[in-house]
Formats: sequence, structure tokens, C-alpha cells
Amino acid sequence: MIREQMLAAEKVKALDWRDGGLYLLDQRLLPQQTSWQRYESAASVAQAIREMRVRGAPAIGIAAAFAVVLAAKQHIANQIVDWQAALETDFAVLIASRPTAVNLFWALQKMRDCLSVAVQHQQPLQVLEQQAVDILKADREANLCMAQLGLEVIQRSSASRQHVMTHCNAGALATGGFGTALGVIRAAHLAQLLTCVHVNETRPWLQGSRLTAWELVGEAIPSLLNVDSAAAHLMQQGDITWVVVGADRITANGDVANKIGTYQLAVLARYHQVKFMVVAPSSTIDMQLSSGIQIPIEQREGKEILALAGQRVAAHIDAFNPVFDVTPAQLIDVIVTERGIVEQPNLEKMQALMQ
Amino acid sequence: MIREQMLAAEKVKALDWRDGGLYLLDQRLLPQQTSWQRYESAASVAQAIREMRVRGAPAIGIAAAFAVVLAAKQHIANQIVDWQAALETDFAVLIASRPTAVNLFWALQKMRDCLSVAVQHQQPLQVLEQQAVDILKADREANLCMAQLGLEVIQRSSASRQHVMTHCNAGALATGGFGTALGVIRAAHLAQLLTCVHVNETRPWLQGSRLTAWELVGEAIPSLLNVDSAAAHLMQQGDITWVVVGADRITANGDVANKIGTYQLAVLARYHQVKFMVVAPSSTIDMQLSSGIQIPIEQREGKEILALAGQRVAAHIDAFNPVFDVTPAQLIDVIVTERGIVEQPNLEKMQALMQ
Repeated sequence: MIREQMLAAEKVKALDWRDGGLYLLDQRLLPQQTSWQRYESAASVAQAIREMRVRGAPAIGIAAAFAVVLAAKQHIANQIVDWQAALETDFAVLIASRPTAVNLFWALQKMRDCLSVAVQHQQPLQVLEQQAVDILKADREANLCMAQLGLEVIQRSSASRQHVMTHCNAGALATGGFGTALGVIRAAHLAQLLTCVHVNETRPWLQGSRLTAWELVGEAIPSLLNVDSAAAHLMQQGDITWVVVGADRITANGDVANKIGTYQLAVLARYHQVKFMVVAPSSTIDMQLSSGIQIPIEQREGKEILALAGQRVAAHIDAFNPVFDVTPAQLIDVIVTERGIVEQPNLEKMQALMQ
Repeated sequence: MIREQMLAAEKVKALDWRDGGLYLLDQRLLPQQTSWQRYESAASVAQAIREMRVRGAPAIGIAAAFAVVLAAKQHIANQIVDWQAALETDFAVLIASRPTAVNLFWALQKMRDCLSVAVQHQQPLQVLEQQAVDILKADREANLCMAQLGLEVIQRSSASRQHVMTHCNAGALATGGFGTALGVIRAAHLAQLLTCVHVNETRPWLQGSRLTAWELVGEAIPSLLNVDSAAAHLMQQGDITWVVVGADRITANGDVANKIGTYQLAVLARYHQVKFMVVAPSSTIDMQLSSGIQIPIEQREGKEILALAGQRVAAHIDAFNPVFDVTPAQLIDVIVTERGIVEQPNLEKMQALMQ
């Protein structure tokens, strides 16, 4: 039932593939401007990922998959005989676009695997395109599945209405569908299990106040914005029952890299006996890394902190701007994936999930 | 020795009393503009406090004390016979300017006590003025004393150089002298005990990136800015050894109200075995309240979160904007006042300090 209600409520998209081109909604300009651009090359998509016109672990994976299709199309149109070899440059540019979210590398590996099949096909472009479309469709299906599973977890924890806190944007804008964390939150709203979503503004890029707030208000889901520093105060008041967030990479032991600030929310949630849920498709799980300490944490330019809306606000100080952090598995109550849920994650449970 | 070094390094002031007028540095405009305005009435000073042109618990107390002098001067100049009665309106306006920091009420009570002496004096204005000047001077002395005491606490904890984190601005801009938390940090720097000050930007008003960074960089104290949400990540890396903050009100049991985000820093510090120091003059201690739950927490307008540099950035969501929170005494390692230090504060120790 939730599935149909969610499909009926679908409003926002981060990306679209049509007429042989990739369309991306420029998330730097939201919510003031809704500006879509068409992309025709891998280099321009890589730039869009780097500049965070498109962001969110699943969404950048999907965008990169379509970027490979665009690149192959260009090379074939340019009559490059060994277009498969030429694609290596495109793969390299896309791989280098952002370091932390593993979905990007996962999607590019999928495209690379598909490439070896496609080159033996009469219509290699169609094969590649179908693979990218399949990645997009599978992500949307995964969102629906996780929404249902996450909702069931919340329902089992309590029959009363919930105050849920979320951080960053793990919504439609971050995925190919309804969102990971926001998918669960949408489902909780549709199931009338939600009193309020407390949205952390999420400095420095304000994914909370600009993107998550926009998605929630657009669907009339009760929500309230706060600065990131007010999270513990809200928990202290006894309001918050769940923290629900997405993920950019989950390692084999269940450690989670996500937007900077997620780790401190997990520490605060544990201290206040608030439950902590991570929602991410299995494409976010990197079984090749044994623990979170191995995840490369992206450092972005200090100016993201030093300036606001293009105007310098800070004094002439240097800034440290890590944009992700790592939450150890022992602070996580449950990881929700489309393959099933993992409570109190550890290596054995993650291995069982991924087998 | 530290005292002389600090006096020699004095650079920044929040307020000045000269030629019978109060001058306030407009902190809304820092660090881009250094704009001083002269104030002549209690109402205009109250507005400056409300609008945070002057902010910081000790500084607003001092400003309010001078506002009473200005009001008395006006009433006497206007030949109002019962100028003492006329002052009641001024007291009321000043009392209503901000609710959380107790130094404001403490300073106004000092002025009220002085008033009963002044009215019997031939030069009542001089008596009132002397009281306000004494409050300012005493705050500056308290800063110096706390800097020395706080430094000794840090020296006792470790002989090696420290990474100190601070939140908001508890510096020269918040006091009549060198600052409370920043006074201790300045002393640690002068004692060559400091590797780096990690400055939380302190949303929504950015006291960290605008004010604290400006003070530190102006004195070439090594410092690095981060978003508030990166605090736990920094602690997780093992860098931070002390969190040092100011206070807006301390209750009889040692609970501390301070800038929103302080409470979560205290929880995070305890989790990471980082020491937590609160530095505040005894004028910040409110023995009339038995615990922090009784402290009125100011809620400011949502637009402080929803807009940046005058431009709307957030979606059309409501915002919850409490600007202080309460840290329970049991999360505090030490409170440093000019009367002495209180380790692991509780009612008995606070009573002993204040007797």
C-alpha cells in the first residue's frame, strides 16, 4: 500500500534521461531556482558531480552511468575505431570526480562490466544505455523497498507518532527515486506515524535547509528546521525518537561514511537513547574495505565555510572542511537496505546480507 | 607575567565610555566593517543589545550599566524632578532586552543599588558613572584573573602543547577585557602551550567565523575554522584536548547556559575523553536558580537561519531557533571564575565559591 501511495506522491527528480541526453537539476540553485541542464559529455557530467550540481551517493552513481553512455555515443559518432579504449579517459575523469561515495565507483564498474558485453553486440550503445537505465530503475525500486522496510522498523519500535531528525539530504534529490532516509520518512508520514521531521540545516552546503526542507514542504510533510548545533538540545528536550540518515559508503564491518555531522548525531543519539537508522541501497556497501578508517574523506575548499551566498563573511582564517565523517557500526541501531535490514551491524551480519 | 603579556597584547574592544557617551562596536558588521556608534539613551542601548550590535554576557551587562548612566543624565538634563522614578522605564526596557544571560540583570541590580546611594549625593551622576566604570574595570580584572587560573588548569592537565576547541565568541568582543574563554586561550598561547585553536563557526550568527576568528587572527594565534558539525570528527581524530567556552548563566548546581551547541560539545567531549572548561566571571552565576532547567532560553527569529547575508536561502519551512542551551554540571570538568576554580561543579562547591 505504501508503495502505491509513494508512487502517487512522486514530485521531485534529480535527473532524467531522455532524447539521448542526461538532464540534471542544478542543486546549487535550489530552492530559489529550478534549473535543468542537458549534458552531452562525460567531462561535463564529471564537472557537475564535482561542483555538486548533482549530489547524493546514489544520484552521482546514476549520473556517472549515463555519462559513460554519453561518452560512448560521442566516440562512436566521431568514428573513433577503438572507442572502448577511448572510454578509459572518461572513466578516469568520472572516477576522479568525488572520492567518498562508493556508489560512483560501483556504477562505473557496472558500466565497465557491461562494456565487455556491449562491444560484442551489434548495437553496443543500446546495451550500455539499457544498463544505465537499469541502474536508475533499480535504485528507484530499492528506494521503495527500503521505505517499506524502514517503516516496519519504526512501527516495531513504537506505535505512537514520531519526531524524526534527519541530516543533509537523502531524498529524491539524492537518488533515482524517493530517497533513502527521506523515503523512510515519506513512508512514515503516509502511514500517519510522523509528528514532525526535524531538519538539520547541514553546513556548509545547507542540503537540509535548501533541499530536504524543499522536498518535505513540497509534500506538506510537517517539518521544522534547526541549526546543526541544536540537535542535542532537541534530544535533551525528549522530542526526538529516531535519527534517520543516508550513507555515502558502508564498510564490511558496518561503519558508515555520511555527511559531516552524522557521526556526532550518532554519538548524541546514543547518549540520549534515541534510535539511529542508516538507509542506503546495497550499492553503497563496500565489502572491500574492512572498516571506516579506510574510507577516503573528501576535503573541500575552505571557501564553502568562509563565504555565504558568494559574500565573504569569515575573518581571514584558514578553514578545515571535511565534508564526510565516519560513524562506527556500534553506534548504529539498524542499517536498512533493499536486501533487508541489519540490526547492530557487524562483519558477519554484513557478509550474510551481501551473499 | 601572563598578566603583563596580555595587557601588552590588548587590541580589540567591544565598548568604550568617553566624553560622557557610550561607544559600541557594531558586531553585526564584523569582520568586514569596524563601525563604532555613540549611544546617548537607554532605549538605544537596549535596541543595540536586542539586535546584537553588542553581545556576550559580560559585555551586555556593562553596556546596560552605562545605559542607566545615560538615562539618568538625560532625565536630569531634562529637569525631571523625580528622575529616579523616571529611570524605572529605562530599567524595564533594559531588563527586557535579552532574557538568558544573567550578567545583564546583575549589572542592572548593581546600578539600582548604587542609585539609592547616588540620589543622596550632591553629584548623583558621578556616583552612577563611577559604578558603571567600576563594573567595566572589574570585568577586565576578572578576565585577567581567569586567564591565569584557566592557564594553570591546562598546565596541570598536560605539559604538552594543546589543541583547544572553542564555540561562539567569549573574547574581548564579549567582555570588558580580554575575554573569558578566549582570555584563557590567549594566556595558553602566550605560555606557548597552544598548537591550534579550533573555532566552531557557530551558526546561525557565526560568532566563531566572524568574531573569534577575527580576534585570534589579529593576534596571530594559530587557529582553524570548522563547521559546528565537524566537532566530533575532530575529536575522533584525537586532535582536541580541551573544549573551552564561556557562559551566559550558571545556576547554583553548576549547570551552564551558553550558546546553542555548547551542550552537544560537552556530550561529545565526555564521549571522547576531551576535557571541558567553562570560563565566566562570578557575575554570570545565578545562585537564585537551583538548576539549568529554570533558565529562560531565548528563541530568536527563524529568519536568522532561513537567510544568509540578507538573502533567503532556505525553502519555505519554519525554523526553530533557540540560541542557548543548558549543559548539566556533570558534563563539566571545571568552571573557572575570578573567585577561583570549581572542579566537577555541584551545589556545595558553588555555594562555597560564592560565599
